[in-house]
Amino acid sequence: MPAPNGPIASCSVKISGVHYRTIWPIATGGVRVIDQSRLPFEFATVDLQTLEDAAGAIRTMVVRGAPLIGATAAYGIALAVRHDASDARLDEAERVLQATRPTAHNLTWALTRMRRALEGVLEEDRVAVAFGEAARICDADVEQCRSIGQHGVELIRSRFESTGHPVNVLTHCNAGWLACVDWGTALSPIYAAHDTGIAVHVWVDETRPRNQGAALTAFELAAHGVPHTVVADNLGGHLMQRGRVDMVIVGSDRTTAAGDVCNKVGTYLKALAAWDNGIPFYAALPASTIDWSLERGDDIPIEERPAEELTHIAGRTSRGTVETVRVVPETSPALNLAFDVTPARLVTALITERGVCAASRAGLQGLYPDRQALRQAPRQAPRASSASTP
Amino acid sequence: MPAPNGPIASCSVKISGVHYRTIWPIATGGVRVIDQSRLPFEFATVDLQTLEDAAGAIRTMVVRGAPLIGATAAYGIALAVRHDASDARLDEAERVLQATRPTAHNLTWALTRMRRALEGVLEEDRVAVAFGEAARICDADVEQCRSIGQHGVELIRSRFESTGHPVNVLTHCNAGWLACVDWGTALSPIYAAHDTGIAVHVWVDETRPRNQGAALTAFELAAHGVPHTVVADNLGGHLMQRGRVDMVIVGSDRTTAAGDVCNKVGTYLKALAAWDNGIPFYAALPASTIDWSLERGDDIPIEERPAEELTHIAGRTSRGTVETVRVVPETSPALNLAFDVTPARLVTALITERGVCAASRAGLQGLYPDRQALRQAPRQAPRASSASTP
Repeated sequence: MPAPNGPIASCSVKISGVHYRTIWPIATGGVRVIDQSRLPFEFATVDLQTLEDAAGAIRTMVVRGAPLIGATAAYGIALAVRHDASDARLDEAERVLQATRPTAHNLTWALTRMRRALEGVLEEDRVAVAFGEAARICDADVEQCRSIGQHGVELIRSRFESTGHPVNVLTHCNAGWLACVDWGTALSPIYAAHDTGIAVHVWVDETRPRNQGAALTAFELAAHGVPHTVVADNLGGHLMQRGRVDMVIVGSDRTTAAGDVCNKVGTYLKALAAWDNGIPFYAALPASTIDWSLERGDDIPIEERPAEELTHIAGRTSRGTVETVRVVPETSPALNLAFDVTPARLVTALITERGVCAASRAGLQGLYPDRQALRQAPRQAPRASSASTP
Repeated sequence: MPAPNGPIASCSVKISGVHYRTIWPIATGGVRVIDQSRLPFEFATVDLQTLEDAAGAIRTMVVRGAPLIGATAAYGIALAVRHDASDARLDEAERVLQATRPTAHNLTWALTRMRRALEGVLEEDRVAVAFGEAARICDADVEQCRSIGQHGVELIRSRFESTGHPVNVLTHCNAGWLACVDWGTALSPIYAAHDTGIAVHVWVDETRPRNQGAALTAFELAAHGVPHTVVADNLGGHLMQRGRVDMVIVGSDRTTAAGDVCNKVGTYLKALAAWDNGIPFYAALPASTIDWSLERGDDIPIEERPAEELTHIAGRTSRGTVETVRVVPETSPALNLAFDVTPARLVTALITERGVCAASRAGLQGLYPDRQALRQAPRQAPRASSASTP
C-alpha cells in the first residue's frame, strides 16, 4: 500500500516540515485523514477504521471539499469490505455513503467507480481491489488537480504579463489541497503561479457560516507563503467595483453538462459582481465533478445543514483555548443552506484537467468527447438509479 | 427637557415592558443611549456627559446607524457647549464629531443644522438652544421614520394583496429603530405591515463582520414579534433564485442626488441578485441621508474599520458569559471596509418620508423641489467646506 504522507516531491503544502496529502491508508488497515473541523487552530489527524467512521467524517465535515468527499467515500467502501465483503454489505455501504451529503457530485462518481471496480470480483479479493481502486482515485485526483493548475496558471500569467502588476484573485470557500487529495482545484493555479514567480495576491472570502475561507484557505495560503488578505463575504463586490480584483477563481461541488456551477453558497453573488464589473469568473474542477446527467443547475439538491453552524462559532480565546460561542440570539430561528448555483451565463470559463473551456455543453463536449457516452450509461446499469439520482 | 424614554404612545419596541428611544436627555444634563455594542446578549445604557463621550460612542459604535449617528452628533454639540459655549469650542466640537465616521451623511447634516441653529446666539443661551435643536432633530427623525413606514407599507400591502401569501422581505444590516431614534428606516414599513395585520416574514442577513443583522435586527424583530429567519450574507442570492424573496428593503448611510445608495458593505451584492431575479430592491431613508452635493456614489469615502472586527467575534458561551474569540489565524491579514455603493440603476425606488420615488435626480427632485436650493448653499456658507466635504 502506498504511504503518500511521507516525503512527496510534488506536494503543495508542508505542515511543520512534513508533506501531507489529506487522506492516506495506514498500517492498521484503516485510513488517516486531517481533521479539518479543528483547523486552523489545531492540526490533528483522525483514523477511520470502519464504513461508519468514513460516513461520519464526511457528514460532520471532518473531511469536506468535493474531490476529498469522493476519495473518502471510495475508502469508505474499502473499509466496509474489510469487515464484510458480501454483496449485501456493499449495497449498504453505497447507500450509507450516498446519504452523507447530497450536493457534491464526486460522491456519486466515486461510488459508481468503486461499484464497477468490484463487480464480478470474488469476495476474498474485494479488499485488495477496493483499496487499490481507492488509491487510484486519489492518485488520479492529485494528477488532475496538478493539471488544473498548469492550465489555470496561464490565465494568471496572461494577466500578469499584460499589466505587470501582482494579480489579485478572489476566491470563495476552500478549493485548495484540503478540499482535494492534494493541490486543490481553484487554488492549484494560484500555487502554480506563485511557484513560478508570478506575483499573485488572493482575496480570501471568509465564507460564512463555516468559515472555510478564513479557517482553511487562509491557513493553506499562509503555509505556502502566498500573499493573501481575508475579507468578509460582503466585501468582494466593492473590491471589484474599485478595480481591486483581476479575476475570480472558485471550485465546484457539481457542474452540469451545460456548465452551471453549484458551489458553496455565496458563489453566485460573486459571479454577479464579476459580471457587472467585467471581471473574468472561473470555476476550476476535475471531470469527476461534472454531472453529465443534469442540464440545469436548478435540479441540483441543495444541502440544508444544522442552523447551529450559523448561530454558533468556534474560535480561539485570549487564553489559547478553543471555545464555541453563540452569535445569534436564542429568540431567532436561522436557516443554513450550504450551496447555490451560478448559471453558466455568468461563468467566463471552466478550468479542468484537460484544459480551459466555455461553460456550456459545447465547451464541455469539446474537452470530453469520450464522456458523452457515459451520460446515458448510469441510467442503463442495474443499480445506477440510486447512485445517479440524488 | 423632554424625557421620551417614559411611556411613548407611538413607539416601535418595548424592552422588558418599557418603551425606549435610542437616545434621550437625562436629569444630570447629559444624554443616555442604549449600548448597542453589548446587544443582543445584554441590554444596557450608557450616559454621555461630554463631547468626547459622544464622539467616542459614535466611533466605537456604541451608537450606530446613519440617523442615530446624526442625532448623537447633535447632542454632542450640546454637551460641548454645556462645558464651554465659546466659538472656538463649537468649531472644535464640529471637527471632532465630523472626524468620528466618514460615510454616513446624517453626521454632516446634523452638524450643519446645529451650526446654523447656534449662529448669532449669545454664549449664555447656547446650551438651551443646542439641547432644543438636538431634541427637535430627534423628534423630526421619529416622525420621518414613521412616515417612511406609512409610505413603504403600501409596497408590502400591494404584494400581499396580489399574492395572498406572507410577504418575504430580505434586509441587510440593521436599519431599524436601533439605527434611528425610533421606528427605523428599512424596518419601519415592516413594523407598519405587521401592526396592520399584513403577514410578513423577514430574511435577516447576518451582516458580517459586525453582525448587526444577527445581533440587532433579529433582536428588534423578535422583541416586536415579527416572524423572521437569520441567514448568512451568502444565502440571499440563492433564496431569490428559488422565489423565496418578494422584495429587498435596506437603509442607506448616504444617498447621492442621483440616487446612488451607499449602505453597509454587501448591499450591492443583494441589489445585483434582486436585479438578476426581477425582485424589487428598495432603499428607505430620510432626507437627512441625501447628500445633495454628490452626484456619483464612487465619490463617497468608504470607512476602513479595524481588522479585529473581522478576525475576532464576541458571543455567549455555554456558561452564559460573553467571550471574544479569534476566528482568523494570526498568520493572515484582514481588510475591513464597512460600506459599498449600489448604483441607482439597481435600485427600484427610494422610500422617503415624503413618499416613494425613482432612484434618480428626477425622482428626488420631484419629492424635494425645495432642497435643490440647498445644494449650493453649503458651498457659499463660510464654514461649509469642512462640513460638507468629507
